[in-house]
Order: sequence, then structure tokens, then C-alpha cells
Amino acid sequence: MQTIIQKYLANINWSITPEQLYEPIGYTLESGGKRIRPQLVLMGCALFDSDFKKALDAAIAVEIFHNFTLLHDDVMDHAEMRRNRPTVHTKWDENTAILSGDAMLIKAYRFLEKIEPEKLLKVLPIFSEMALQVCEGQQYDMNFENSEEIGEDEYFKMIRLKTAVLLAASLQIGAIIGNASTEDAHWLYEFGIAIGIAFQLRDDYLDVYGDPKIFGKKIGGDILCKKKSFLLVNALKTAKLWQKAELKEIINSDALPDDEKIAKVTAIYNTMEIPQLCEKFINNYMDKALTYLDKVNARFPKQPLIDLAIQLSGRKE
Amino acid sequence: MQTIIQKYLANINWSITPEQLYEPIGYTLESGGKRIRPQLVLMGCALFDSDFKKALDAAIAVEIFHNFTLLHDDVMDHAEMRRNRPTVHTKWDENTAILSGDAMLIKAYRFLEKIEPEKLLKVLPIFSEMALQVCEGQQYDMNFENSEEIGEDEYFKMIRLKTAVLLAASLQIGAIIGNASTEDAHWLYEFGIAIGIAFQLRDDYLDVYGDPKIFGKKIGGDILCKKKSFLLVNALKTAKLWQKAELKEIINSDALPDDEKIAKVTAIYNTMEIPQLCEKFINNYMDKALTYLDKVNARFPKQPLIDLAIQLSGRKE
Repeated sequence: MQTIIQKYLANINWSITPEQLYEPIGYTLESGGKRIRPQLVLMGCALFDSDFKKALDAAIAVEIFHNFTLLHDDVMDHAEMRRNRPTVHTKWDENTAILSGDAMLIKAYRFLEKIEPEKLLKVLPIFSEMALQVCEGQQYDMNFENSEEIGEDEYFKMIRLKTAVLLAASLQIGAIIGNASTEDAHWLYEFGIAIGIAFQLRDDYLDVYGDPKIFGKKIGGDILCKKKSFLLVNALKTAKLWQKAELKEIINSDALPDDEKIAKVTAIYNTMEIPQLCEKFINNYMDKALTYLDKVNARFPKQPLIDLAIQLSGRKE
Repeated sequence: MQTIIQKYLANINWSITPEQLYEPIGYTLESGGKRIRPQLVLMGCALFDSDFKKALDAAIAVEIFHNFTLLHDDVMDHAEMRRNRPTVHTKWDENTAILSGDAMLIKAYRFLEKIEPEKLLKVLPIFSEMALQVCEGQQYDMNFENSEEIGEDEYFKMIRLKTAVLLAASLQIGAIIGNASTEDAHWLYEFGIAIGIAFQLRDDYLDVYGDPKIFGKKIGGDILCKKKSFLLVNALKTAKLWQKAELKEIINSDALPDDEKIAKVTAIYNTMEIPQLCEKFINNYMDKALTYLDKVNARFPKQPLIDLAIQLSGRKE
């Protein structure tokens, strides 16, 4: 499925005028990534319809939307690199990133338009509701930067909105295009939420415990930017008073060298058995996911979806 | 019609969480403006259907879209004030303006969704195509900042995309919701393009020749920021070599006080009879507009639309 998506994406012509608007879009979309979300659209469809290629336009819409969020998030986070290449606002400038991002969001809707009318009317509100929720998730994530401490509930609310709803809606949209019943599409959505949360928990985990050669990002990045990850949220939550003070002091220290800071925080996480807690949560969400998937009356095998879920929740990269 | 629009807009609840995302949207939409575009949607509908209120959701979608473009344009142009109030990125910050703008664009689509399905399928591609064109227009406008001189053709292409297509699509969308024929909706679109261009020409004119008490903006702003307005584009086009050199020297001078710079450039415009040329173009576009409007087989009077067009092309404010 990944090959079909890549091929379709590569065939979109972005060499149109004004090139200052469209070239950065082509650059963003050619830069790879695992194309998980469009795969989920196709897989959601393939459960109910052997001709899953009819969901390709929706799959591309979702991928363009996802890349739009990355583009604008990178501006807001002042991120200089993405997938080993300079981000759009670094390679061009901020105005380019804002305007090309806007155009991408509109382009996503242009691909949705191609869906068969009867299905489009069902897909459109799901897509827009999801898109708004992703904005809300990004807003909560930015709010967290100004909070000393956030609750576990708030953390889960944020990653649900920022990460999980897009995976869930991708599956649901694919299912609708495959002519699934409302109920089946609903359970697939819930399955998507659960694997989306497991996926984000694994992401938080790998940021500290990943193999730098495979993970692709610098290990400990979340610690250095004081990100309210699952690990930090739970460490602060379960820490004894003195541990909490120590942890906060290290996290907020300007004097400590990066490596030392990462090592010290990791040591505290280890003492508190935070990685084990994270694994436990991932397993729980995966169990939940499979229970939801069981409720789906699919016409075709669910195994590819289970494989992808396992890959997402346990991935090494 | 303006009252109906204001009332409907005022009833939308933006006091929802996360407030950091939605409060700036409420702030932007409450700040007034003449609500020209949603009026055009309602007027387009009212030509064919006495129950023009059925176009209200589309009218609101268009108004939210328009305000989204202002919000992001203000970030890109580093504009501090809009309608006598601080812009969103000034009152909050840039990230807020980017993300709230994104949410507004999605919200615009959420209002479109409410259109009756059969009509929605026709409106959706028109809306998205228009939205992309507005982005293209903004890109050309930004490109112009880095050009010493631009051609009249390029100028008209830019204002068509940045300003006129939104007015045109507003009318067309209203007409479709009012059940107009494709042909009638098309001629209404062309009417909208022509009045949109006349509207922008008047805007360029008023920036230099407007009454500061009525215009609301500082007179001569375009001259100070070297904007490629109709006046400057045509002055540079028709100037003799020595005049051109003089005009460029004044425009690019850092030494001249603002008032003096504005006075000198205005004097050159006057000598070259640029304001008269601008009036001539406005009249031509208005004539063209009325020819297009004549082709529309409307069920109800066209007079309100003609009145609005006259107001837009000759407005004092």
C-alpha cells in the first residue's frame, strides 16, 4: 500500500505558478515519512471492499493535511530540521511556511472533493471535526509549555487530540468509502484512537530509550526542551516531594551540560520505573484496541491492520 | 442584510476550550468590517429565491474565510493594527495568530457543510478553488515587494486573485444556493470579478486621495511601504525616463520625512494624471460589470446589487 501511495503522491504536479507557493508543498510531501495515515485510510477501506484504491484520494487528502500540520507546527515550535532536511521556514522563510501551509490545508479539501458524492457528504464533517481537534491538541500542547506540571488526564486529552484522532479518522474515512456500516466505522475509529495513543506513548518512550541509530532523532530531545511527555508527567506525579524537587531542579537547570541532564533525568525515570509504567500503558491501549477491532464485522482479513498496530506501538524507529 | 449577518455572527459561541484557540477567533469576527462578502452571498441568492436566508451558513463561511485571510496576512505583513484594534499576533502572539487562523479556515468548511447536500456538492469545489486562488494572490503580492517594477498585467492578475475572486465566488455560491442556472451563476461570477477589481482600484485610489476622516486608514500608507498599487504601477509605466528616475528616488529615499515623501509622490501622480486614469479604469470595470449583470436572468430585482456595486467602486470609506 505504501508503494501505491508514494506513486500517487509523486505524480501530483506541484510545478505550477506561483512557484514560491507550490514548490514548498512539493518539498514537504516528497520528504517521505512512513505514510501511516494514508495507509490507514486504505486499510480501513480494504476491510470492506477489495477495490481499496477507491480510497486513494481520501488517503492523499489525509496525508496532505498531516503534512500541513507538521509545516505549521514547525513554525510554531521553531524547529529547524524535519526528517533530516531543513524545515520550510528554515529553507525559505516564515511567510512561505504560513502561506504554503494554508494552501496545503485547502488542497487537502480539494482531494476530498473527488470522493463519490454520497460518501463525501459523510466524510466531510468527520474530516473537518478531526482537523479542528488537531488544532485544539496543538493548542493544549503549546499551553503545556507554560505549565510547571500537568495532570495525566490533561496529557491524555492532549495526545488524543493532537495525534490519535487523525489516525482514528483515517480509518473511519476509509471504512466509510468501503461502505462499512456506521457501527463498524465507529469501532474502527475507537481502535484508531487506542493505537494512536499507544503510538504516541511509544514515541515519548523512544525519545529517551530509543536506539539513536534507528530512532532518527536526537535521544533526550524531550528532556532538553522540558516537554511534558508521558515520562515526565508520570515521574512528577508519582515522585516523592524530595524527588520532585530534584527532578524539577535538573530539568530547569541552565548550568548542566545536555548529556549530563539527560543522563540524570533518565536515571530518575529508571529508579521510579517509569519506562515499565509506559510499557504497561502501551500494552493496555493495545489490548483495548484489539477489543474494539474484534467488534468490527469486516469482510476481509484484519491481520494487516493488526500488524501495523503492533508496528506502531512497538516500533524501534 | 447586514443586520441579519451581524446577528447570526454574534450568536456563534466562541467561548469554548481551549480558549487560547477560540478567543482570538471571536475577537477577529466581532471587530466589524462592512460584511460585504456575506452580503454578496445573500444577494446572489436573493436574485433567484425570496427565502435568501437559506444562504446564511454559506455567507458566514465566506466571512470566516475572509477574516482568516486577514489574520494570516497581518502576520505576514507584520501589521499591528486592523480596524482600529491591535491585530491578533500583536494582542496575543504569532503562534496564536497562525493556529487560530488555521482553525478559522476549517471552521469556514464546517459552515459550508450545513448547505443542503445537492448544493453543497456544487459549492465545495468553487469555494476551495477560490480559497487557493486567494493564497496565490497573496503570494504574488508578497513577490511584488521584491520587484522594482511590475507590469500592469501582473498587477491585474494579482488583484483578481487576491481580491476579486472572493467577491465573485460569494455571488456565485449564493446564486447556486438560490437554484440559479449554471449560466446565470457564471455571469454573476464575472460581474463579481469586475466589481472586485473596481473595488480594489478604488482602494488604491483612496489610499492617496481619500479623506483621512472617512477613510479610516492613514493616507499615503501605500506610498510609504512602496506598495505596487495601481497608481505606482501606472506612474512607472507611463513615466518618461527622467520622471521614472525621480519617482524611484523619492519612493526609495530613507532621508525624506513621511509627509514630504507622500506630497512629492502625489504631485507626480497628479502631473501624470494618474488619478484620472484610475477613475477611467474604475468606470470601465463598472461598465463591464453591468454588462455581465444584464446577462443574468434573475427572478427578483437586481437593484440592491447595483447599489452595492456603485458603493464599492465609488466608496468614500
